[in-house]
Amino acid sequence: MKINGQSWRTIWLDDNGRSVSVIDQTLLPHAFKIVTLESADDAARAIRSMQVRGAPLIGVTAAFGVALALRADATDAALEAALVLLRATRPTAVNLHWTLDRAADVLRPLAASRRAEAALDLALRLAEEDVAINQAIGEHGAGIIRTIAARNPGRTVNIATHCNAGWLGTVDHGTALAPIYRARDEGIPVHVYVDETRPRLQGAALTAFELGQHGVPHTVIPDGASGHVMRTRGVDLAITGCDRVAGNGDTANKIGTYMLALAAADNHVPFYIALPSRTVDLSLASGDAIEIEERNEQEVLSVTGRDADGAVRSVSIAAPGAHAFNPAFDVTPARLVRAFITERGILAPADFGLLTKDAA
Amino acid sequence: MKINGQSWRTIWLDDNGRSVSVIDQTLLPHAFKIVTLESADDAARAIRSMQVRGAPLIGVTAAFGVALALRADATDAALEAALVLLRATRPTAVNLHWTLDRAADVLRPLAASRRAEAALDLALRLAEEDVAINQAIGEHGAGIIRTIAARNPGRTVNIATHCNAGWLGTVDHGTALAPIYRARDEGIPVHVYVDETRPRLQGAALTAFELGQHGVPHTVIPDGASGHVMRTRGVDLAITGCDRVAGNGDTANKIGTYMLALAAADNHVPFYIALPSRTVDLSLASGDAIEIEERNEQEVLSVTGRDADGAVRSVSIAAPGAHAFNPAFDVTPARLVRAFITERGILAPADFGLLTKDAA
Repeated sequence: MKINGQSWRTIWLDDNGRSVSVIDQTLLPHAFKIVTLESADDAARAIRSMQVRGAPLIGVTAAFGVALALRADATDAALEAALVLLRATRPTAVNLHWTLDRAADVLRPLAASRRAEAALDLALRLAEEDVAINQAIGEHGAGIIRTIAARNPGRTVNIATHCNAGWLGTVDHGTALAPIYRARDEGIPVHVYVDETRPRLQGAALTAFELGQHGVPHTVIPDGASGHVMRTRGVDLAITGCDRVAGNGDTANKIGTYMLALAAADNHVPFYIALPSRTVDLSLASGDAIEIEERNEQEVLSVTGRDADGAVRSVSIAAPGAHAFNPAFDVTPARLVRAFITERGILAPADFGLLTKDAA
Repeated sequence: MKINGQSWRTIWLDDNGRSVSVIDQTLLPHAFKIVTLESADDAARAIRSMQVRGAPLIGVTAAFGVALALRADATDAALEAALVLLRATRPTAVNLHWTLDRAADVLRPLAASRRAEAALDLALRLAEEDVAINQAIGEHGAGIIRTIAARNPGRTVNIATHCNAGWLGTVDHGTALAPIYRARDEGIPVHVYVDETRPRLQGAALTAFELGQHGVPHTVIPDGASGHVMRTRGVDLAITGCDRVAGNGDTANKIGTYMLALAAADNHVPFYIALPSRTVDLSLASGDAIEIEERNEQEVLSVTGRDADGAVRSVSIAAPGAHAFNPAFDVTPARLVRAFITERGILAPADFGLLTKDAA
């Protein structure tokens, strides 16, 4: 995707073939800064601090993290330490765990001398896979938007989304936003209601930034306004990404997704989840088994933005002495999800049985 | 109620008998500043800018605004101009309109020479009425909390709320928070989940401030986290205030209330509205007839708080060039409301027919 007309991915191997670069998403859209990752520690820090975020991008960053670790030390002990370090960064997104399992399967049997190159090959392959998967998600999802547009000729299709499941949350294209970009590129008139997505405001900051760069009309709303917008302005569909889906279709995604889904259900707005099919975790019977990350209360008690001079600055918003609870995700029950938009097509939970780790 | 041990109301007649003072709620909890109102223009500005907010307090401030106008000029023309000026400040809260109707009924028949004193008497009487009404709301609402506590001896009663319907939104005591203060004073263990309430953060700023000053345990959460909290932590009841209730029980309150009510319904949490019974507007058949104020997008696109030096400062949070939609209220359908806690007792919409303007 493009920023000011120039093509970017969110993560790439530097020309030196040794370090990896990412866009620092904690500073976007207020500042554009590239961060260079030289070690597994750097990669773990980038994930934990949310310089990189979004389930697919977290997975790919972890794969590069393993490669960086093995470049320095390719022993069994170093490999296992890197896997442990990276696995501990964030608990909810399954892509992280899936990626590290795959890295372990590929790398453990290899001689130490061959591991660094194999790990880098794997990371690069996973990055390309992510791009291809998201393009396919975009194609399948655009079909839904196309159908709605065909029923209402000349009318703009209004789409609600939450958090950022755009190209910034993946290597490129995005999951939830991929169908929107594709519909827009086909000339279908679309408009997006962007939940600002407290506490970290990925909607107002990242999704609005992406959509603006791609020329997609959009309006930022407070998270609490989604229901009112659906009741009074008309929304045709809602699409979000996700971090993990249980075998029954219960879906963990950014905090607030469950409430958006409730508002959609109450207003007969179809609610879709867009995801690489490997985000389905068949080992979990229901959403109750998904571990929900709880983050530092300061993410709620303060807000970061640009001051009048353009400097990035945090302000405390709450009463002095107040405490906050900061769950990073919630679980949307499968009953509230119309369907799952994957690279393999539009799926219902009943179809999940066909997915196996190998096939994915 | 008390701030740092000292008793305050939100609005009072100054000792000079001529000006009126209010606490500037746009600066709380970051700074404590008293604003003096000398004219109807001052009162209108305080309402529009939300230096005073909360439906009951808006009504009382408007009554004082009429008194300030008539002190300067008590002619028919001046009276009508003041009524028009104050009525135009904010459209949704019915208390404002009800108060100005009452002022018109009282003051129009009087000789100009008697109007200023009568207007001041009315404002002072309405302020005292508000205090008495809220005490009664507190008594009736505490009964609900007492019943829940009695069913669960020794366990803390968890209560969710949205925005600020505490003493800061009234002259004293509050509506939604009055039952909580009373239960706390009775020794019932309570804990409040405070929705931060974007965009203006009245929950994190004002409700957390009030509850902290009164020693009520509480936790601030992002608005989008209410559903997750109800699903995973257990909430016994939700109580909010309101700005206008239609004859069928549809309730306009701060944006996000509808979504909190949806989350409560999905989790079998009883959802209550606390209000002076005169907030019911029997002239409206349903919530579709309630005018919803739309405010400036800058309230969404920027956030005000304290910087590291303690200065109050605003930061821009969204992508440059992004636009926002900022509805100040939403409508919660009556089907989602368990009951209405009023000074006359716990009511259902079927009871509203007994309320008449005179009796209220």
